[in-house]
Amino acid sequence: MVAQAESTAGRAGWIGFLSDYGLSDGFVGICHGVIASLAPTARVIDLSHDVPPGDLRRGAALLAQAAPYMPAGVLLAVVDPTVGTKRRSVVVQAGRSFLVGPDNGLLLSAARALGGANAAYEITAAEVMLQPVSATFHGRDVFAPTAARLANGLPPARVGAAIPVEDLVHLAEPVARLTAHRLEGEVLTVDRYGNVQTSLPAALLRDGGLREGELLRLHCRTGEVHVPFNRTFADVEISEPVGYIDSAGLFALALNGHSASAKYDLRPGDPVALRLEA
Amino acid sequence: MVAQAESTAGRAGWIGFLSDYGLSDGFVGICHGVIASLAPTARVIDLSHDVPPGDLRRGAALLAQAAPYMPAGVLLAVVDPTVGTKRRSVVVQAGRSFLVGPDNGLLLSAARALGGANAAYEITAAEVMLQPVSATFHGRDVFAPTAARLANGLPPARVGAAIPVEDLVHLAEPVARLTAHRLEGEVLTVDRYGNVQTSLPAALLRDGGLREGELLRLHCRTGEVHVPFNRTFADVEISEPVGYIDSAGLFALALNGHSASAKYDLRPGDPVALRLEA
Amino acid sequence: MVAQAESTAGRAGWIGFLSDYGLSDGFVGICHGVIASLAPTARVIDLSHDVPPGDLRRGAALLAQAAPYMPAGVLLAVVDPTVGTKRRSVVVQAGRSFLVGPDNGLLLSAARALGGANAAYEITAAEVMLQPVSATFHGRDVFAPTAARLANGLPPARVGAAIPVEDLVHLAEPVARLTAHRLEGEVLTVDRYGNVQTSLPAALLRDGGLREGELLRLHCRTGEVHVPFNRTFADVEISEPVGYIDSAGLFALALNGHSASAKYDLRPGDPVALRLEA
Repeated sequence: MVAQAESTAGRAGWIGFLSDYGLSDGFVGICHGVIASLAPTARVIDLSHDVPPGDLRRGAALLAQAAPYMPAGVLLAVVDPTVGTKRRSVVVQAGRSFLVGPDNGLLLSAARALGGANAAYEITAAEVMLQPVSATFHGRDVFAPTAARLANGLPPARVGAAIPVEDLVHLAEPVARLTAHRLEGEVLTVDRYGNVQTSLPAALLRDGGLREGELLRLHCRTGEVHVPFNRTFADVEISEPVGYIDSAGLFALALNGHSASAKYDLRPGDPVALRLEA
Repeated sequence: MVAQAESTAGRAGWIGFLSDYGLSDGFVGICHGVIASLAPTARVIDLSHDVPPGDLRRGAALLAQAAPYMPAGVLLAVVDPTVGTKRRSVVVQAGRSFLVGPDNGLLLSAARALGGANAAYEITAAEVMLQPVSATFHGRDVFAPTAARLANGLPPARVGAAIPVEDLVHLAEPVARLTAHRLEGEVLTVDRYGNVQTSLPAALLRDGGLREGELLRLHCRTGEVHVPFNRTFADVEISEPVGYIDSAGLFALALNGHSASAKYDLRPGDPVALRLEA
Repeated sequence: MVAQAESTAGRAGWIGFLSDYGLSDGFVGICHGVIASLAPTARVIDLSHDVPPGDLRRGAALLAQAAPYMPAGVLLAVVDPTVGTKRRSVVVQAGRSFLVGPDNGLLLSAARALGGANAAYEITAAEVMLQPVSATFHGRDVFAPTAARLANGLPPARVGAAIPVEDLVHLAEPVARLTAHRLEGEVLTVDRYGNVQTSLPAALLRDGGLREGELLRLHCRTGEVHVPFNRTFADVEISEPVGYIDSAGLFALALNGHSASAKYDLRPGDPVALRLEA
């Protein structure tokens, strides 16, 4: 069902792959198969396929945090609650990499993390896709084939017409601001350990005069947490809360050895505010 | 513990790999290690390892739907509730690919999807396996080594004697028939999004006079669903039901943005019947 | 963010990778990206990333059971509840392989399975790591880069000073002993099927006079199980219990077709005792 590769030319392009397909249904494996058929020398790195179904903000955050650590190449991302509607399929060029996916905001945080989008193309060329294109599985029929062909060296302009980067659909940016009295942000992600990552970057804490070693007051939906600002969770006793700058450069709340998310009932999207303990 | 490869000869064979091993216990990684040791240039595509334990019908359906999108090569499939009994270990040749696994019906839907089984061999050659062969982990000791050696170019007749294709164990086919008044089928799979895939192929709907744009009545265990037959879930309002031909060419029931499986309590194996709204 | 590889030299080193990162958060994908950037010809085999968070004993057992089936190369293992403390980062040489991870006992069962640790090095060389090194994600910044460079052929002494193997942190060995009246052990792991693997090796059963074909009495927290000692679960009727030597060479308890763990409420760490039926 998959036509032979047009020109693999010995390149070994990298394709990072993120989706909300889960690992149970075979969708991810089928996309791998399509890539292998079209671009046999490409190599695929699975970033995560456990984005909650349709959760664009989570998908965008994961993709943006992984992007700087991927080798230059292609990032294929499919979280696509509006598959089958008129939303566009796009290639976004950022730095030395191409982002491939739906034009629904999923790709742009990663583009910024790679230095900013400098070109975009709408995927319309029938010969790039698997034919016939299904109405419900564009990962298989549109995005994976496009990623494979770009990994093979296909110039991006061959997928379709250039479109202005400004016209791409943006997600609302997560709240992260310094007001007179405090920093206001939101919970961005919760990881497997229950560590709560906020939208507040290290630089904003510095601007607000919050420095390591100080005691902070974190205001959240369920109350207030008094928490030392330290380097890592290992700086406090087991079960004690700690605030720290996490590996993505964002303020995070953890309990040493336990789940801060469970204890404080914090979930992605919850508002948080931070200030110095008076 | 794994002997060196007999003749990898620069080939880069593809091995698609499906199992019910799950990803928690290391069984999948061990099989990858065995393949890497015996066939270092082979590349493995994981199709799914989350087949429910022992669920041959789900495994067979997943394998069959993925097979046409895999590059020609080997498909290694292990769902094996009767490991350790006298069930045979087999290689089935279909199209340009080899299917490797237990002779319990798991492989034959995929063989049909690849054009039909044209030869079969029982795996008995001791030198193909890892010795000693355990009684409980034939994935590691029998199937992965066989897949690796076939990817290396070993002729299939070297694994053991040819057996008649007709003698292979078959699963009962899923129900899918056109009666005087309706189409009768069953739920084949439910995916991560709660979309309910039936056993009814697009051609059977055409034969029954059911066409896109019409209103259908889907009879199931929990009652009747009145549902438009459209192209995709995005054709209806959020939370509304829709029938459509899915990416595998089968009639499916979805709710736009929600789980049809949860709303209608539909699970694999449930009988369904479909007819035009009177 | 990742510097170019120092000397990949056409080698295709293997890296087995085990962690407790889970597959939802992108941590595993980021480590793959770091490896791909530093060692583009290396190939990574994922052993398991579903070790329960911080569970060193489970991680050590999985790694030790997989290690003999991996091609010679690097084993990267990160279960690291004390990341950010003074625990050392180490490379342990065993057989023809290198184990890379925290010095918290995780690596040493695997080293034994590979013939024993014959050298160890503390990872301290700043140029081996990604800079700046975060306080909370040493997988990305310390362990994956070290694994990548070893796969590239970097001599292990380049990561830092040699340390005595005897000084490495050990986990308490699982209980497994023959007393006057019985064998005493513990539950080591429970797999996806509910099979209960104990710490009792086949040789200890032989020493205790327990042979296949005999009837055993297994004493556990929730009572006594009378169980035949057979070759595999398929040797008993569906739903019946059976004791057998599993694919790792350890005594295990299963129900044919069902979960022994659920029926007998057995979990890792539970004490068990085994003797001949009187």
